Amino acid sequence: MQAGKPILYSYFRSSCSWRVRIALALKGIDYETVPINLIKDGGQQLAIIEYLEETRPTPQLLPQDPKKRASVRMISDLIAGGIQPLQNLSVLKQVGEEIQLTWAQNAITSGFNALEQILQSTAGIYCVGDEVTMADLCLVPQVANAERFKVDLTPYPTISSINKRLLVLEAFQVSHPCRQPDTPTELRA
Amino acid sequence: MQAGKPILYSYFRSSCSWRVRIALALKGIDYETVPINLIKDGGQQLAIIEYLEETRPTPQLLPQDPKKRASVRMISDLIAGGIQPLQNLSVLKQVGEEIQLTWAQNAITSGFNALEQILQSTAGIYCVGDEVTMADLCLVPQVANAERFKVDLTPYPTISSINKRLLVLEAFQVSHPCRQPDTPTELRA
Repeated sequence: MQAGKPILYSYFRSSCSWRVRIALALKGIDYETVPINLIKDGGQQLAIIEYLEETRPTPQLLPQDPKKRASVRMISDLIAGGIQPLQNLSVLKQVGEEIQLTWAQNAITSGFNALEQILQSTAGIYCVGDEVTMADLCLVPQVANAERFKVDLTPYPTISSINKRLLVLEAFQVSHPCRQPDTPTELRA
Repeated sequence: MQAGKPILYSYFRSSCSWRVRIALALKGIDYETVPINLIKDGGQQLAIIEYLEETRPTPQLLPQDPKKRASVRMISDLIAGGIQPLQNLSVLKQVGEEIQLTWAQNAITSGFNALEQILQSTAGIYCVGDEVTMADLCLVPQVANAERFKVDLTPYPTISSINKRLLVLEAFQVSHPCRQPDTPTELRA
């Protein structure tokens, strides 16, 4: 391992780890992955992304304009603080096996109802305008969770089309859960 | 209403509204309160605080040093993304009356177990060092929620003593839920 190379403690399936992997890929930061089979609390990985933004400012993951920055953070927080924490593994264990699918679907659809409306006023090619921002890093992993929990995405055309445009980008590809060191063989792609 | 005076859509009891009220008080920003009897998702109010920090930088709610800023954001996100969303009113309604107290207590104690440990390495007088930061704005409202849900705070001496030192500060006093325009008479103090 190279001296000073950052280490990411990562879980292939975690949407929180994935957000950080996209940021690292976008900023071209080489890192070691140490897989941990554990899902951490949702919000905390945004602190890593803000840290990366401050120490490695290029490419920018936050717009210059304070109002646009607030939009980016509002969308990021809606996902990382308002949706993901309600459908993560530890919460689903607590609610019990019989209702956990319905619980996760409810958490995601009520969040996506709000998100779809917000995006209709902020989106360009991506979540806020035409540049990839922190909000996009949160969107793609959350849509993947929605698909895993079989949420019908038809009512969310803006979310779906932004997600499609992001998924083809290199940084979103290399960071994808199906391509991580700890991805089980049967889930690789 | 004065032209350009910001409006805060606030709910006296919401820990998310309280965080923002502390920030507004610290920065000496005069505002109108429009009470709304509704609890919004936890994380989103951090976008407002980051916006205030960028547009009204004095006094600073984030340290200069990127590593310390990351500590502040990690603590803030742990509370706003890892604890509060699991014990807010809409989630408690969903889990049902019989178990909601236990549910809220579990969410808070597992979060506080992590938080107490983190604070032991970051705290000075306040959460991170000796200046009031965004992390402190998140701490005090969350401790108030813990008390409301009758969580035993004995295992959290660092959390408790920082909370006590913060509660005496002017900005935390004026923003307190017991002193808001929509506070019911019986809860005023």
